[in-house]
Amino acid sequence: MTAHAMTGSHLIGGQWQSAAASGWFYAANPANGKSSSERFSEGAAGEVDGAMTTAAAAFEVVRDLPPNWSADLLEAVAGAIMDLGDALLERGEQETALPRGRLTGERIRTYNQLKLFAEVVREGSWVDAVIDTADPDRKPAAKPDLRRMSIPRGPVAVFGASNFPFAFGVCGGDTASALAAGCPVVAKGHPSHPGVNELFAAAVLSALEGCKLPRGLFALLQGESHDLGALLVGHPSTSAVGFTGSLRGGRSLFDIASQRPRPIPVYAEMGSLNPLVILPGAMVERSEAMAQALAGSVLLGLGQFCTKPGVIFTLGDNAQKLIPALARAITATAAGPMLNKILRDRFCDRAGEFARVKGVKTLVNGAASAHAMMAPSLWETTADIWINQRALHEEAFGPGALVVCCRDEGEVIQCLGKVQGSLTGTVHAGAADEEELVARVIRKLESLAGRVIVNGYPTGVEVGDAIVHGGPYPATTDPGWTSVGSASIRRWVRMVAYQDMPDALLPAALRNANPLKIQRRVNGARSDDPVSAT
Amino acid sequence: MTAHAMTGSHLIGGQWQSAAASGWFYAANPANGKSSSERFSEGAAGEVDGAMTTAAAAFEVVRDLPPNWSADLLEAVAGAIMDLGDALLERGEQETALPRGRLTGERIRTYNQLKLFAEVVREGSWVDAVIDTADPDRKPAAKPDLRRMSIPRGPVAVFGASNFPFAFGVCGGDTASALAAGCPVVAKGHPSHPGVNELFAAAVLSALEGCKLPRGLFALLQGESHDLGALLVGHPSTSAVGFTGSLRGGRSLFDIASQRPRPIPVYAEMGSLNPLVILPGAMVERSEAMAQALAGSVLLGLGQFCTKPGVIFTLGDNAQKLIPALARAITATAAGPMLNKILRDRFCDRAGEFARVKGVKTLVNGAASAHAMMAPSLWETTADIWINQRALHEEAFGPGALVVCCRDEGEVIQCLGKVQGSLTGTVHAGAADEEELVARVIRKLESLAGRVIVNGYPTGVEVGDAIVHGGPYPATTDPGWTSVGSASIRRWVRMVAYQDMPDALLPAALRNANPLKIQRRVNGARSDDPVSAT
Repeated sequence: MTAHAMTGSHLIGGQWQSAAASGWFYAANPANGKSSSERFSEGAAGEVDGAMTTAAAAFEVVRDLPPNWSADLLEAVAGAIMDLGDALLERGEQETALPRGRLTGERIRTYNQLKLFAEVVREGSWVDAVIDTADPDRKPAAKPDLRRMSIPRGPVAVFGASNFPFAFGVCGGDTASALAAGCPVVAKGHPSHPGVNELFAAAVLSALEGCKLPRGLFALLQGESHDLGALLVGHPSTSAVGFTGSLRGGRSLFDIASQRPRPIPVYAEMGSLNPLVILPGAMVERSEAMAQALAGSVLLGLGQFCTKPGVIFTLGDNAQKLIPALARAITATAAGPMLNKILRDRFCDRAGEFARVKGVKTLVNGAASAHAMMAPSLWETTADIWINQRALHEEAFGPGALVVCCRDEGEVIQCLGKVQGSLTGTVHAGAADEEELVARVIRKLESLAGRVIVNGYPTGVEVGDAIVHGGPYPATTDPGWTSVGSASIRRWVRMVAYQDMPDALLPAALRNANPLKIQRRVNGARSDDPVSAT
Repeated sequence: MTAHAMTGSHLIGGQWQSAAASGWFYAANPANGKSSSERFSEGAAGEVDGAMTTAAAAFEVVRDLPPNWSADLLEAVAGAIMDLGDALLERGEQETALPRGRLTGERIRTYNQLKLFAEVVREGSWVDAVIDTADPDRKPAAKPDLRRMSIPRGPVAVFGASNFPFAFGVCGGDTASALAAGCPVVAKGHPSHPGVNELFAAAVLSALEGCKLPRGLFALLQGESHDLGALLVGHPSTSAVGFTGSLRGGRSLFDIASQRPRPIPVYAEMGSLNPLVILPGAMVERSEAMAQALAGSVLLGLGQFCTKPGVIFTLGDNAQKLIPALARAITATAAGPMLNKILRDRFCDRAGEFARVKGVKTLVNGAASAHAMMAPSLWETTADIWINQRALHEEAFGPGALVVCCRDEGEVIQCLGKVQGSLTGTVHAGAADEEELVARVIRKLESLAGRVIVNGYPTGVEVGDAIVHGGPYPATTDPGWTSVGSASIRRWVRMVAYQDMPDALLPAALRNANPLKIQRRVNGARSDDPVSAT
């Protein structure tokens, strides 16, 4: 693709459109507050309707294509993103103030994610094909031939996140998995980095053109207003929603979706406390190393990872070795620019709330500075105080964590009973810790989190088959799903069964000959063999 | 088990309780309106809290048991239902007026369903175990060991249906699949047949006792008031809801569940029009036979099947051979008692609405008679009229159907575009019909239904691996699921991943040795082999 000249427009049906803009907004560099030279169009009802109507029309077209079209597209998008070259990284630096190394890493993650889903589509078994052949002689009634598989739901609305502008952005995991499932995507870009959004959209457009696919398969809508998101979720053609962001934002879209005449699912990944429990044996063995690693996990991306360990429960007196080391490691970490000023101000408010709770000690007092700059903080309190202070139970999104000192096992278990649904739960144990206690803590963590980690750190989310990035509310709207990894594709499908359908009329995945050579469940057994004609 | 003496109580924590009843109600025989001799307690907040609190406590206990406990329980429940003997069938006849043959058939269906889920649990692979082993040498960062599986959500509320008092009742598919998943069940029995509900609950209690399992695993709440259902869905310990019934009832529970502080999923199976399309070739080949079979499908269970074909779209002039034959077959069918007077009166209202639409011809005018008695009806109209009359687009639950005569393919496709989400969609085609037209109709049916049937009838739902009993709204609250068959168990689980967890602390399904001998996905490939220790 040729270099993309920034338009400040939405991408709708393959056209850059901004004529009908209801207003304009600018990007700001979080490190210095400097505004972008371009202005970006604020989308409204007309853009939403245009994008969703072309998406619905594109859906009708691709339902008749051979199933690998989405693999071709995902691979072409991956390639087109690399073709954006330094322009993407430079724009990313301007709009997010994330360091070049981080952005390069996130770009490869985004690339790999698209390639992973392309592989899943090409392998083909993800459609979960199940075949029960007929038995005309069954008594008391003949048994019909029944075959089921997953088919795409329809056009999907994706809300990009600010904290991973590439990997959870407009070409991130939600978009990749929805396209893989065969659903058109209308992406609402995060307004913190509209230029990045536009570059990604240009990459998808070039991929659609290269693959000769309907341009309605992908649209980008830009805007700062909550109304735009509400219109997108409320549109009659929208069949499902993917969202990564705040609890308030996710819940508000969920409420709109649930109250529609035809309700639709909202897969929202929202706030998460990510409790981390440290048992005495672990502190005996490795307090110093753990302090360094834990500070690194808390402050990765300036604490703006959804898996940041926000509360650390220590058991027993050994904590008095760990906590000072942790405070030193956190003090030694420099201030940095948060992703935008709104997030920085919100974190300052939460930090103030923490510090004002009687019985909470401020061990490291990070201060705000120019524009979105913030230095890291650490607080300490007791189990008694924590259990009774609801202000301490909610996520503080930013560079800081709270250590809660528990005197005995009962306090640890009681505290965990108060932790709301989280993406992750972690326990650190040493050789001296009793396995029964470790098992008890794990059982508690499992009840509140989608991923349980032993002797590790929750930041760093693998993209693969076994990952779960999800968890009980308020971490997500429904713990039945993951928003990362190959299983995330399942969010975008529905099940259909075909009864006594002539072979030629069946979808390829269900035909006797198994032309796609996928693994299926045939009369109760896994098989990739053809089915003998009935 | 010994014969159960009817108590008129709720079953909570293994105790028959009615002391705190907020009122009483009686069962009525739909054939003659005769009231039951026993009164039944009306449940309220105290009963809901008692049932859900014991369910939550039981959940904690069974999470630590070896995984086959639920298979043992399901088999014991199946046995205990058969042990109820004629008492169940007699009570069923009194409370539903369904014929003995139908009830005997439904009992074996209920029995088989419980046994099927027990088999699914014993086979074990339903937990969808996925293992990605570690790679400490991976660059740029070591790869952790990640293993995921499905675990039960927690206590589930099940709302039994009136139209299948056994198979969709308090020991029906929702209860069987939820227990299979490892979730305790609090069942709200349908007030049309409270004695049947109590007998089933007695069977579960006897099974729990025989298996020495916590009695909180199953509760029965009885009542006529909508408040009881609302309290059950709103209770903080409720983690998911299964419902079969009306659109109004299902939607109202869905709204309550979505507006909770912690939203929970409601899997509601509601109204369905079940369109059936008849192409010209089919009518040339078999009008007479089709008329008989179609009348049988429309009137099965007096039209009170959720899969009843409610609207029949015919294409072309051959319909003038089919329709009179269909009218004769429907006229020849005797009146019968509907399931209760409320359903009968509601059907009469809908029939009146149909007849009043200008351009709708009443071909067979079924009349109401004593108590819940109703004779069957048939209406006919044109595509023009149908498309523009929203009153004709909604289900009329009872003995009747509407034939819509389409002049050309365009009208058929246009009509199908107006059909709301349905459980099923059917097409009848003959050798003379063009395959391209059949494929077009199937694509339309697939977009609106969960099961597409060729040259068959939608009533009669197989219970197996490939069945889908679900479909787009308003057939259900979410087309991602089925409420019948082995896949229905997935509604009651959530995903959890374990990262770098020592083998001994992993759930059995994920341990290296594969002690449950289940099929798993290990590093991308299906396998039931052990995993070599890392």
